[in-house]
Amino acid sequence: MSTSRFQKLKEECCNANRELRTLGLVDLTFGNVSVADRQAGVFAIKPSGVDYEVLEPQHIVVVEIESGATVEGALRYSSDTPTHRRLLMAFAEAGAVVHTHSRDAVAWAQAGRGIPCFGTTHADHFYGEVPVTRPMTPAEIGGQYEWETGNVIVERFEAAQIDPAQVPAVLVHGHGPFVWGPSAAKAVEYAFALEIVAEMAIATLRLNPAAQPISKALLDKHFLRKHGATAYYGQPGAGV
Amino acid sequence: MSTSRFQKLKEECCNANRELRTLGLVDLTFGNVSVADRQAGVFAIKPSGVDYEVLEPQHIVVVEIESGATVEGALRYSSDTPTHRRLLMAFAEAGAVVHTHSRDAVAWAQAGRGIPCFGTTHADHFYGEVPVTRPMTPAEIGGQYEWETGNVIVERFEAAQIDPAQVPAVLVHGHGPFVWGPSAAKAVEYAFALEIVAEMAIATLRLNPAAQPISKALLDKHFLRKHGATAYYGQPGAGV
Amino acid sequence: MSTSRFQKLKEECCNANRELRTLGLVDLTFGNVSVADRQAGVFAIKPSGVDYEVLEPQHIVVVEIESGATVEGALRYSSDTPTHRRLLMAFAEAGAVVHTHSRDAVAWAQAGRGIPCFGTTHADHFYGEVPVTRPMTPAEIGGQYEWETGNVIVERFEAAQIDPAQVPAVLVHGHGPFVWGPSAAKAVEYAFALEIVAEMAIATLRLNPAAQPISKALLDKHFLRKHGATAYYGQPGAGV
Amino acid sequence: MSTSRFQKLKEECCNANRELRTLGLVDLTFGNVSVADRQAGVFAIKPSGVDYEVLEPQHIVVVEIESGATVEGALRYSSDTPTHRRLLMAFAEAGAVVHTHSRDAVAWAQAGRGIPCFGTTHADHFYGEVPVTRPMTPAEIGGQYEWETGNVIVERFEAAQIDPAQVPAVLVHGHGPFVWGPSAAKAVEYAFALEIVAEMAIATLRLNPAAQPISKALLDKHFLRKHGATAYYGQPGAGV
Repeated sequence: MSTSRFQKLKEECCNANRELRTLGLVDLTFGNVSVADRQAGVFAIKPSGVDYEVLEPQHIVVVEIESGATVEGALRYSSDTPTHRRLLMAFAEAGAVVHTHSRDAVAWAQAGRGIPCFGTTHADHFYGEVPVTRPMTPAEIGGQYEWETGNVIVERFEAAQIDPAQVPAVLVHGHGPFVWGPSAAKAVEYAFALEIVAEMAIATLRLNPAAQPISKALLDKHFLRKHGATAYYGQPGAGV
Repeated sequence: MSTSRFQKLKEECCNANRELRTLGLVDLTFGNVSVADRQAGVFAIKPSGVDYEVLEPQHIVVVEIESGATVEGALRYSSDTPTHRRLLMAFAEAGAVVHTHSRDAVAWAQAGRGIPCFGTTHADHFYGEVPVTRPMTPAEIGGQYEWETGNVIVERFEAAQIDPAQVPAVLVHGHGPFVWGPSAAKAVEYAFALEIVAEMAIATLRLNPAAQPISKALLDKHFLRKHGATAYYGQPGAGV
Repeated sequence: MSTSRFQKLKEECCNANRELRTLGLVDLTFGNVSVADRQAGVFAIKPSGVDYEVLEPQHIVVVEIESGATVEGALRYSSDTPTHRRLLMAFAEAGAVVHTHSRDAVAWAQAGRGIPCFGTTHADHFYGEVPVTRPMTPAEIGGQYEWETGNVIVERFEAAQIDPAQVPAVLVHGHGPFVWGPSAAKAVEYAFALEIVAEMAIATLRLNPAAQPISKALLDKHFLRKHGATAYYGQPGAGV
Repeated sequence: MSTSRFQKLKEECCNANRELRTLGLVDLTFGNVSVADRQAGVFAIKPSGVDYEVLEPQHIVVVEIESGATVEGALRYSSDTPTHRRLLMAFAEAGAVVHTHSRDAVAWAQAGRGIPCFGTTHADHFYGEVPVTRPMTPAEIGGQYEWETGNVIVERFEAAQIDPAQVPAVLVHGHGPFVWGPSAAKAVEYAFALEIVAEMAIATLRLNPAAQPISKALLDKHFLRKHGATAYYGQPGAGV
C-alpha cells in the first residue's frame, strides 16, 4: 500500500484543524487551517464542510500554490482556499494560514475596528494593532470572492506597510480573522492569542472608553523579548 | 414485542432534544425539539418537564399536525406543543422546530430587538435580520397562549413577507427563540448558530453602537454559497 | 454502629451543597445550602470552609431552628448559619435555603439593583422582580452580623409585601443572593435559574437600556402555568 | 540516587503552576508561580515557556533570593523571575508569588484602573481596592525591565501605605496581575479570587456606572472574619 508523499503535511494540517476545535476557536464547521510545503510548492487544506470530529489526514486536500490546482485528495477543498492561497503567495514567511470565526475577534471585524495594542498579552504576539480591512465592493464580492478577500488583506498590509511577519493576523471587515505563522502550530497559537486579546480589549474599552495603546517602549520590549534576534523568552533553541 | 411505527421519528426527536443540552443551548428543562413526518401527518415532541439526561425515545409524544391529538405516548407533551404545531402548519418547508432559552438570543428577545445581520457568520445561516415579534396582547396571553404564540410568529413573517425557509428563526418578544429547518439536525444547528450570532452581535454593538448590517452583495454571496441552486459550500450531494 | 436519626437530612444537604459546585454556582468555598426538617425543628447545614470535593454527610452540622444550638456534628457550622436560621424562621414555606456568590447575581447585588422581570425565563421561576435589600448599617454589621443579614431580608419582603413563596430569592446589597424553596433540590434549581436570569438581564439592558418588564398578563401566565393550583407544566403529580 | 534538598519546594511550585491551568487562569504559557523557602533563602520558579501539561518538579528552577543566582535546575527560569524576586524581597510575609494574564484582571490593568471593593467577595480576600501601578517609563522598560516591574509595584504599595499582607494583589499597568500569599496554595487562591472579583466588578459597573465601594464597616467585617486574630471563618486551626 503506497502512501502519499504529502503524508506528513496532511497529518500536520489535520491535527491543526482539530486543534482549532479543542481550543474552542471554531463552532460547527466555521474554520480551517492550511499548511504550506514551500519546497514542493503546495499547501494542504481542510476539505469543505467536514466535521472536525471525523476529519482524518486522508481527507485533506493538497493544492498547488502557484496554479491553485488540486494535486491530491478526493474531496472538494474548503471554499476559503483561494484566500489561503492568496496569502501564502503574498506573505513569503507564512508557513500556515488559519481562518476562524472566533467570537470576539469576529465582533471587532463586524464593528469594523482594528484591535489596538492595549497590553503586553497583545504585544507578546502582535507588533501593534491588528488591522481590519476595508469593506469589499460589490464587484469584488460578485467576482472571485474568496481570492478578492485575500486581495483586500494584502492591500491593507501593503498600504500601511505592515510587516505580516510581525503582525500575523488581520480582521476581514464584516467577516472574521485570518491568522498566519511560520508553522501550523504557531499559526493556531496566534489565532488563539488573537481571540484572547480581542476579548480583553472589549472589556478594556468597557472599563475605559478612552483607553490608550501601550507605549512604543513597552510594545518593543514585549514583542522583541519573544521574537527576533534579541529574544530571551523560552528555552534557548526551542524555536519560539 | 411490537415497536412503534414512529420509532425512527421518536429516536430522531429524542437525539435532537439531547443534543440541545450537549451544545449548551438549554438549562434545566427550558427547551424542546419537534420533528415532523409530513407523510404521516404527525410530529414527535419532547414530553413536558422531563430531564434531558433521562429522556428516551419511548418518552417522546407523537401528535397529529392537523388536529393536535396525541397519537402515541403516555406522557403529557411539552406545554409549547401548540406553538410547534402552529409553525409546522404554517411553514411547509419546516421538518423540525426547536425552542430554547439560549441566553444571548433571549437577551435580544427581552430587549425587543431583531438581530441585524452584522457579518458573514449570520449570513451563512440567516438571509437577513432575525426578526422579533410584537408583544402579545393580554387577550392572546389569556386565551390559547401557546397557539397564539405561534400566531404572532406567523403574523410577523407574513406581514414583512419574510421567507421562513430563508430566515429559519424568530425571537418571541420577552420570551426567546423558535428555530426551524428541513431536519431535526439542521434545526438544532440553526438554533446553535443563532446563539453564536446573538452573542457576536451584542459584542459588535458594544464596540460600535452605530454598526451597520453587511451589504446586500455580501449577504447574498454568503447565504447563496451555502443555500439554494448555486451553492458550492460543502461536498457535492452532502445536502447542506 | 449507630446511625444518626438525621442521616437522610444530612445526605440531602450534602448532595445539594455538592450540586452547587456541579452547576458552577460557587467558586472556592463561597456557598452553602441548609435543609430543614420542620417536624424535628432542625436544619442541616454545610460546615464552614470545607471544600465541596471532600464534603461528606458526616461533616454536615445539624442545628435547632428555634435556639440555634448545634444538635449534631463535630465541625463548626457555616458562618452564614444565622442568616439561614433567620430565613427558615420567617419564611414558613421554605424547606431549604441556598447562599451563593454566583457571579451575575452578585453583580446586581453590588450594583444595588433588583432584577426586573424582563422575560418568561424569569417569570417561570420568580413572580416579579427579585428584590435587593438596603445596605446594612454599621450597627447591624458590628452586631450579630449574619443574623441581621437575615433581618434586612425579612424586612425587605415584609415592607413590600412580597410573598417569599412566590419570589424565592433576594439579593443582599453589596453581597449576593440568598434563595429558598420547598426542598433542597428546588432551592438549588432556583439559585441556578437566578444566575441565568441575572446574566440575561445584564445583556438585555446592554441592548436596550430602557427595557421594560414583561406585562402583568405574561408574568401571570408563565408563573401560574408552573406554580399553584392551575399549573399545567410538567407531568401530573410530578410535584413541580 | 540522590534527591534535591529542595524536592518538596519544587513539587509545591510545580503543583501550583499546574493548578493555574486547572483553574483557567492561564492560557498558553502566560503565567507562573514562585514559592519561597525563607530559611534557605531561595525560591523555586517555573522555567520559561514550558507547557503546564508537561511540567514536572525536575523542571523547576531554584534561585537565591538575595543574589538572583540559579542554585538548581538545568532550564532557564521564567523571564518574569526578577519581578518575583523583587516582590519576595520587599514583601516579607509573602511565601509565594503568582503572575497570570487572567482575562478580566488584565482588562482592569489595561484600562489603568484599580478594582474597587464593590462587595463582600472582594472583601473576603482583599482589604480594599486592588491597586494599579503607574505606567512604566521608557527608561525602566529599556533597563532591567522585569526587576523594574517589581519596583513600580513596591513603589505603589509604599506610596499609598498599603499593607501587602492585607491586599495581596496588584495590577501592573498595561500588563496584568501579580498576586502573593503565605503559601503557594493561598497565592493561587487569591489569584483565582482576583479574577472572579474583576469579572463581577466589570458587570457591576455595567449595571451601575456610579456604583460605590461597600462601607468601611462591611469591609472590616468580611476581611476580619476571615483574617487575623479575630477570624471565625473555617475550622479552628485550619489555618485560613
